[in-house]
Amino acid sequence: MADGALSFLSPRSIAIVGASNDPTKRGYQAIRYLIADNFSGDIYPIHPREREILGLQAYPRIGDVAGDIDLALVCTPARTLPGILSELGNKGVLGAIVLAGGFGETGTEGQALEHQTLNVAHEHGVRIVGPNTSGVFNLHAAMNLVGMPNVEPGGLGIISQSGNMALSIVTQAASRGHLGFSTYVGVGNQADIQFHEFLAHLGEDPNTFVPILYVEGFKAGRAFLDVARNVTQRKPVVLYKSGRTSIGQESAKSHTGALAGSYEMSVDLLHQAGVVVARQSDHVVPIAEALSLQPPAASANVAVLADGGGHATIAADSLTENELHLPRLHQQTAAKLAEILPTAASLANPVDVAGGTDANPGVFADCAEILLQDPNVDGLLIVGLFGGYKLRFAESLGPIENETAKRLAALVKRYNKPILLQSLYTPMWTDALRILRTQGVPVQESIEIVTSCMTALVHYGHAKRRNAEHPPIPAQPIPDGADAIMATCRAEGRLSLFEHEAIELLKAYGVTMNNFVFVRSEEDLDTAVDAIDATPMVMKVVSKDILHKTEAGGVRLSLRSKETVHKAYREILENALAYKPDADIAGVLMGPMAKPGVELIIGMTRDPIYGPVMMFGIGGTLVEVLRDVSFRAIPLSRADAEEMMEQIKSGAILEGVRGAPPIDKDAVIDVMMRVSALVQAHPEIAELDLNPIFAHQVGCAVVDVRIILAEEPPDD
Amino acid sequence: MADGALSFLSPRSIAIVGASNDPTKRGYQAIRYLIADNFSGDIYPIHPREREILGLQAYPRIGDVAGDIDLALVCTPARTLPGILSELGNKGVLGAIVLAGGFGETGTEGQALEHQTLNVAHEHGVRIVGPNTSGVFNLHAAMNLVGMPNVEPGGLGIISQSGNMALSIVTQAASRGHLGFSTYVGVGNQADIQFHEFLAHLGEDPNTFVPILYVEGFKAGRAFLDVARNVTQRKPVVLYKSGRTSIGQESAKSHTGALAGSYEMSVDLLHQAGVVVARQSDHVVPIAEALSLQPPAASANVAVLADGGGHATIAADSLTENELHLPRLHQQTAAKLAEILPTAASLANPVDVAGGTDANPGVFADCAEILLQDPNVDGLLIVGLFGGYKLRFAESLGPIENETAKRLAALVKRYNKPILLQSLYTPMWTDALRILRTQGVPVQESIEIVTSCMTALVHYGHAKRRNAEHPPIPAQPIPDGADAIMATCRAEGRLSLFEHEAIELLKAYGVTMNNFVFVRSEEDLDTAVDAIDATPMVMKVVSKDILHKTEAGGVRLSLRSKETVHKAYREILENALAYKPDADIAGVLMGPMAKPGVELIIGMTRDPIYGPVMMFGIGGTLVEVLRDVSFRAIPLSRADAEEMMEQIKSGAILEGVRGAPPIDKDAVIDVMMRVSALVQAHPEIAELDLNPIFAHQVGCAVVDVRIILAEEPPDD
Repeated sequence: MADGALSFLSPRSIAIVGASNDPTKRGYQAIRYLIADNFSGDIYPIHPREREILGLQAYPRIGDVAGDIDLALVCTPARTLPGILSELGNKGVLGAIVLAGGFGETGTEGQALEHQTLNVAHEHGVRIVGPNTSGVFNLHAAMNLVGMPNVEPGGLGIISQSGNMALSIVTQAASRGHLGFSTYVGVGNQADIQFHEFLAHLGEDPNTFVPILYVEGFKAGRAFLDVARNVTQRKPVVLYKSGRTSIGQESAKSHTGALAGSYEMSVDLLHQAGVVVARQSDHVVPIAEALSLQPPAASANVAVLADGGGHATIAADSLTENELHLPRLHQQTAAKLAEILPTAASLANPVDVAGGTDANPGVFADCAEILLQDPNVDGLLIVGLFGGYKLRFAESLGPIENETAKRLAALVKRYNKPILLQSLYTPMWTDALRILRTQGVPVQESIEIVTSCMTALVHYGHAKRRNAEHPPIPAQPIPDGADAIMATCRAEGRLSLFEHEAIELLKAYGVTMNNFVFVRSEEDLDTAVDAIDATPMVMKVVSKDILHKTEAGGVRLSLRSKETVHKAYREILENALAYKPDADIAGVLMGPMAKPGVELIIGMTRDPIYGPVMMFGIGGTLVEVLRDVSFRAIPLSRADAEEMMEQIKSGAILEGVRGAPPIDKDAVIDVMMRVSALVQAHPEIAELDLNPIFAHQVGCAVVDVRIILAEEPPDD
Repeated sequence: MADGALSFLSPRSIAIVGASNDPTKRGYQAIRYLIADNFSGDIYPIHPREREILGLQAYPRIGDVAGDIDLALVCTPARTLPGILSELGNKGVLGAIVLAGGFGETGTEGQALEHQTLNVAHEHGVRIVGPNTSGVFNLHAAMNLVGMPNVEPGGLGIISQSGNMALSIVTQAASRGHLGFSTYVGVGNQADIQFHEFLAHLGEDPNTFVPILYVEGFKAGRAFLDVARNVTQRKPVVLYKSGRTSIGQESAKSHTGALAGSYEMSVDLLHQAGVVVARQSDHVVPIAEALSLQPPAASANVAVLADGGGHATIAADSLTENELHLPRLHQQTAAKLAEILPTAASLANPVDVAGGTDANPGVFADCAEILLQDPNVDGLLIVGLFGGYKLRFAESLGPIENETAKRLAALVKRYNKPILLQSLYTPMWTDALRILRTQGVPVQESIEIVTSCMTALVHYGHAKRRNAEHPPIPAQPIPDGADAIMATCRAEGRLSLFEHEAIELLKAYGVTMNNFVFVRSEEDLDTAVDAIDATPMVMKVVSKDILHKTEAGGVRLSLRSKETVHKAYREILENALAYKPDADIAGVLMGPMAKPGVELIIGMTRDPIYGPVMMFGIGGTLVEVLRDVSFRAIPLSRADAEEMMEQIKSGAILEGVRGAPPIDKDAVIDVMMRVSALVQAHPEIAELDLNPIFAHQVGCAVVDVRIILAEEPPDD
């Protein structure tokens, strides 16, 4: 049996609780598969009355079995589970696969039963897969407890929240003829074992080269991210996430909170952890195939080799839309290609052989080698008719194509750069295409899918390198004064820091802030003006009862004299009380007015699934309309911060538009890193918005800050 | 022979110029195909020396043939073309398919030869397909002049700018087993006949149900839009557009000009004309298949029927991402479903049968009929395992699945609502899936592709109804004064209207404008202030030499008194001359300052391919960064204008965000319609920007106008 917490997934012995002589029952089918597949361990059918099932001795109760039992497949109804788990525990069984539905997914009563079952399991140290799971297989242990027939053993693992989606993956892979599977787990209700534990298990499993996950929802998203970051250092992980409707948090007090919870946020966090996210369900198997057969790409620089202009153009469009890069080829590369291709050929990238392979498809391998030798090229995409030359042109080209296929496969190993191939003859399954696939060069019919596969190789390579170079940043000690600010806020029964408190907190973490002064009464205004010593000034109301200061008429800009300051003070108080007559006004905050700049937002929210996440994007009042933001889990590395900035759609604005200079990205990244450290050190912060931040050519100014504390201080 | 301009594509007789006895030559292969396919007309091989080719009498010259010749396939090199076309013309040949490359695509010399060839053709009234075409077939006339073997006749037509992409389409269709083709045309260099003429031909061709186009670039995009709008009233048209890199017009003087020319603009204009644009090349054949077999949907309301939660969720996500709508089901529908499905079933939309079909897949047809009877449902998507029940559950379910497939096909006809099906067993090609396809219900393996097909049925139905109800608006008479404004501008040697001229022009077309006054000298300022009679006021410099007024310091806002007006005037003149010392300053424009509102842009540019197009979107200085815009060809209908508004990504801003009221959409649409009429009446306008327009709860205010005239007045 394998080591590790879920070692029972490679069991030496299995009990089938609810075994049956009825061929339509899972308790029969499971035993039939185990026998048919020559499962090498002991099989113990458990049935109250039967003496024999499928030629095996049956036992009335688990306790009647003499030998050790590693794993139990439980096929009995939900209500029997607490009792059965107690028996399994007494027998020392390590894990139980619970097929029955009727637990948490059905309502209050089922939830109570699930809770009770879980308690019994914990008490007895039995781990549960499910309940409400479609089952488990481990084909390398000849254990198929899920009842999918004809699945070949191989290197793909599956962890799925839907049995039918796993069936889709297995069926699609089978139609390709050369892909096999290691372990499948249906997570069911994830009552006990959740995605992250299964992923950690497949991460350790030497038979699994690529874990594939179908996820509707995580229960412990942060734990998953942590495991994924670790596993993806050793092997690629492909994930499809469904349930994409944006949920947001309607009760959120910040822009960040309101924008979190989206599908796009999940994708960002998963990418950060090194996971390859398949955006289309029909790309999952091809991507897993590519990642299992080909080396990751060292950069996004991809060359395209085509035997026709149409395919070349579509491939170039598709790569560009995936933000891959078609580099200019080295001069020498073009020269070498010119020697073997006709004059009509296009020697730029994409390369179009323009008939130069019609008489001899072996020229493909010559071109491929020249392209892979180019230092500007880290991956090669071949598109068009290859593999069908014998059908399109002459039967005699078949052997040349087969030989070329072998040469292409050898090039991958020689240069350690990925080659992927699209052929319109894929449905015809010619020998050349079979050779490519079996020797490790995946073949796709669709240009979009092959592009998606190349993108996965590029993204995986990039994320693996980035995460290796940037380990998670440990929490830093809390600076002086920070805890006191929190304590004051709590003591006064507030969940929202006053803005001057938030400013002090940010300053404690090293964020450069303008010189703001909190003023409690009108007689202190003049002293404040002298202390600020800059015009124009801004004044904002400070009140725990007024969150939307501008709406309340609680903000005055462009104040240039003590006289206007006094006038503004009286107006603000008047407006605030008109807006909310019982508002408790603590005072006003005064400071120099920031020079206008590019409006950005840096925010944070504590996502119920993923924990603390940072948001960066285009700020101002239209944040939620424009939705041009990126997310990362906190703590983030500097590389993460840089990528957040590169990712936003209006990135051009950061480079300077209409003759404006580029913004000071380093200054903004510095704020992001300091906010990350602040949030990491203070789990009691629930939401945070710095919005807007005015980014300038040199430096940036945080114009408005909002920090909200959690209702209950968290445990950790 | 068929009627119409391109009747020679259904020829009674064909000459093969450059016929050959060499089996590797097109001049041999073409004749071989014609004989093998039993082409019913006369075939005349033309060769200077051969007396017989493939058993047919050969002729030294075209003039030697006694009978009439409708069509010539010309296989000889480029330089022979002018001579051959002259011979063809003298013989009265209607059309020539010119295979040779070496024309416009190769450079200056080839361009000259193409020009010369075209002149000869025009002179003699011979129409040219190509040159540099892969050929033509019309399988219903048993004429295959392209050399693709084994293509079945059927209802799909192809017009392609790439022979290999046509080969892809034909090969992909062949692998489905039931799709056939009518006519294929390789457009080649489009020297004479372009996309729009071929499309008009297939629009009239009774054998073509769905024309499919692969387009890299149009030469006459506007003519194509006009033809497409017409053809799509009779049959659906599917188009894939490659070459997606945004080109823009670097020299553009307006935001609209700078944003035009993109792939997204092409898609908008094609949608307006009723064309279904396939965004992925691998979706082209499935979409054409769906449109050729199924009725268009009457609305975007689609029901999903699934036999598993995973497929149901992914289908719902995918439909939602395509902006289709999963309506709430009628109460009666849920009640009827409840009668035949188990209690665990989900009776909302998506409907999950939760095992309710495992024992009897016939329940699918029962559920489908109940769903199609629902007045809220206009299309049905079935996803999951159907067609594979006999593989997954029991062989005995096979006949039930086959019967169910027939019932599903019959439902489409009975309710005239589309049904599409996705099955993970598609690669296995079970009998039930074959029956579905051959009886008119397309089957796909991929949820994303089947969603894309449903989207096409919804979009085609919508566009066809919209265009039928909204015929193109005829040009309106030019109002008094409009021509005089243009004449003044031209007479003064300007290409840019002064803003007060632009304002007058807009007013002449009924656009409500603020009360602006053009002031030529300081002594007229006070009179202007009295005439405007509103504060605050705005003042802008007017100079043909200053396009970027704000940058030049040529704009002053918030003027509230005659004193500040005079000061502003002097500052503006000073700034303008500092900015551009030799600037010719005509004066300043003064008017009331508009109340802030949602900033929009309405613009127009004369696209070199598509002619005049309108742009609508989020305005202000960040237009080109946000790129949240939509395009339509001018003239646009009111329905077009409404859809432009619905289409923008930040549409929420028009509905009012953060408690703001919705904008007055009617007022903005009114401006769009009037600008459309203005542009339609004045082909001399090259570019136009109204940016920003401040949209309010009631009405909207055009804050800034820019109108640029074409360098040369256009011919039309």
